[in-house]
Amino acid sequence: MNAFVTGAATTKFGELWGISPRTLAREAFDGALEDSGVSRGRIEALFVGNMLSGLLGGQEHLGALFAEELGLNGVPAFHIEGACASGGLAVHEAVSSIRSGQYKTVAVLGVEKMTDYKPEVVSTALMGAGSDEERAAGATFPGLYAILARSYMRKYGVTGKQLASVSVKNHFHASLNPNAQFRNILTIEAVMKSPLVADPLKLLECSPVSDGAAALIITGIGSGNPVEIIASEVATDSLGLAQRGSLTELKATQIASRKACEKAGLEPADIDVAEVHDCFSIAEILALEDAGFFAKGEAGNAILKGKLTLGVSKHLVVNTSGGLKGAGHPVGATGVKQIAEVVGQLRGFAGNRQVKNARVGLTQNVGGSGATAVIHILKKI
Amino acid sequence: MNAFVTGAATTKFGELWGISPRTLAREAFDGALEDSGVSRGRIEALFVGNMLSGLLGGQEHLGALFAEELGLNGVPAFHIEGACASGGLAVHEAVSSIRSGQYKTVAVLGVEKMTDYKPEVVSTALMGAGSDEERAAGATFPGLYAILARSYMRKYGVTGKQLASVSVKNHFHASLNPNAQFRNILTIEAVMKSPLVADPLKLLECSPVSDGAAALIITGIGSGNPVEIIASEVATDSLGLAQRGSLTELKATQIASRKACEKAGLEPADIDVAEVHDCFSIAEILALEDAGFFAKGEAGNAILKGKLTLGVSKHLVVNTSGGLKGAGHPVGATGVKQIAEVVGQLRGFAGNRQVKNARVGLTQNVGGSGATAVIHILKKI
Repeated sequence: MNAFVTGAATTKFGELWGISPRTLAREAFDGALEDSGVSRGRIEALFVGNMLSGLLGGQEHLGALFAEELGLNGVPAFHIEGACASGGLAVHEAVSSIRSGQYKTVAVLGVEKMTDYKPEVVSTALMGAGSDEERAAGATFPGLYAILARSYMRKYGVTGKQLASVSVKNHFHASLNPNAQFRNILTIEAVMKSPLVADPLKLLECSPVSDGAAALIITGIGSGNPVEIIASEVATDSLGLAQRGSLTELKATQIASRKACEKAGLEPADIDVAEVHDCFSIAEILALEDAGFFAKGEAGNAILKGKLTLGVSKHLVVNTSGGLKGAGHPVGATGVKQIAEVVGQLRGFAGNRQVKNARVGLTQNVGGSGATAVIHILKKI
Repeated sequence: MNAFVTGAATTKFGELWGISPRTLAREAFDGALEDSGVSRGRIEALFVGNMLSGLLGGQEHLGALFAEELGLNGVPAFHIEGACASGGLAVHEAVSSIRSGQYKTVAVLGVEKMTDYKPEVVSTALMGAGSDEERAAGATFPGLYAILARSYMRKYGVTGKQLASVSVKNHFHASLNPNAQFRNILTIEAVMKSPLVADPLKLLECSPVSDGAAALIITGIGSGNPVEIIASEVATDSLGLAQRGSLTELKATQIASRKACEKAGLEPADIDVAEVHDCFSIAEILALEDAGFFAKGEAGNAILKGKLTLGVSKHLVVNTSGGLKGAGHPVGATGVKQIAEVVGQLRGFAGNRQVKNARVGLTQNVGGSGATAVIHILKKI
């Protein structure tokens, strides 16, 4: 059985002080349902991607909670958690459930509410994704990604300008996305002059703390204007950086991407649009190389030269949504939003950020500092 | 593709002060692996059932964490959460993944460490399974199940003795299970004289706080002495009791059980052994009736008369492991342990608690006060 996305929707991402997670979930789900043309009663199961509800709000059992909230009377419901890859993993599980024949039509909801808590509380909660020793040492993710950035810069001679250009590109794309958290245009100078968060990473190279939700309707019968999920692959790596063989690559991304390309019968060169996990500037560079789009050490210069920017790129455009940096990063929602963005591009619904003739798209969603990676490849039917 | 359990193992359950969750996980997983005869390198994905690690320990990202800990180099790994039904849901997801053809052989790990925290902290964390209003009102699960018990006693005239007999039966079975938390024989008098926790539920009618782990190897190719999973069904209900149409039945169990029997082509009368979710005495009575073994109001008397007790029962024996009450209730492990117990019974490996000629078994795993229910039906090949 194949799996098709027939509906997709995303709420606005941002500091949504006045909106509850339940309201965000309803807005995303109702939008996806309307987009698909499927009635609520046809949804046979719900897969919820969320990382922080337990840690920040003391609320677990999110499958049953959102099944009730969304009016999905009694349906099987699952809460899937894998740190910032929770959304991508929820999609993977939904796809498996369709392919198994267990369910005919399911919904995926990615949702996260992060801004109701003090920043230090959120930083600590996010370390729930890290290793024992990283947590005990008081490390936070900007620091861990700074280690990756410093190691990578040393090995490949990538420059601060190249790193900064990731945010410039992604804010430009976000400026075209009405649901993005930040719609301001950045310059390389502005990024490089922004305060250091964890050397070499500047404030404007770090994705924000965000609220938001995204939803998909996935079904075994492609009708209307569907997009087929032609590969859904997951891989893991050690939780902590200290246990890795290399600090300049994300092994889980490499494994999942290679498997996904094999399953899809495609090469990275066949991809027209990609949403990758730019939680920090260095993460997008690692993602693009480890997913096979560039040889190691080459992605930064390509981004700086505008080769992955809408309107400049000849074939591959990356993070048209604005990515995590521009569009925002409500962690459990991100992996679902990435697919919603690619689905919009492949269906030709992306408005003024539409990539012309986009036929094949890829998403790369990461948990922690690379311990979980989820790759999806989608194709216009 | 069918799904077979080819290996199963459970650690000792109890107050395991000296043993870490990682050690528990390794012991259960290595036991299941050895039981299956499959090599570690053949495990293609890991499904982890756990509720409280984030809430109590600040640690999420358990898929990648345990993939690393168990030496499952880079495999796809998922943390599935659905309160005390986390283990059953993890099995359901594993079964879907096998049936989809995505993976050929996978492992399920249910693991929970609850005794390292103050009891009031654990009680509060467990309320992560409840509704907003229940949490805000300071309700705890003994109180919520007491509401169910009181409503049920009033409607059906079930007696305190009948309720108490659930614990008597399950402690007798636990006395035969070397991995059980409590191996002491109880009398009805002892249960009824134990302190009230939440009227009408006595201390000896409440399952304990426990540490423990259980693991399964599930594969698409039944070889050796396998047990087939012939149905795996999930249903949900409102999170809070106040939103339910009835306080004397668990609707999610009814739905999931009916679907499971349909899929399996069986009636409840065909079941030889069952593990049901006796988190409180009333819960076992509700489970047995709502799963279709008894008409409403009749399970309590059957238990009191010994009709579900090993050595007395003519056909159905319930909670041979000792159930949650006798064997212990490390919440995320429970749903996996239930299946491990039934698998042991169907393979004839249950030692001095073996049910003769057991060919078909059922498990019922519940999250919260009934908002999630998972039913599995297993058959000896």
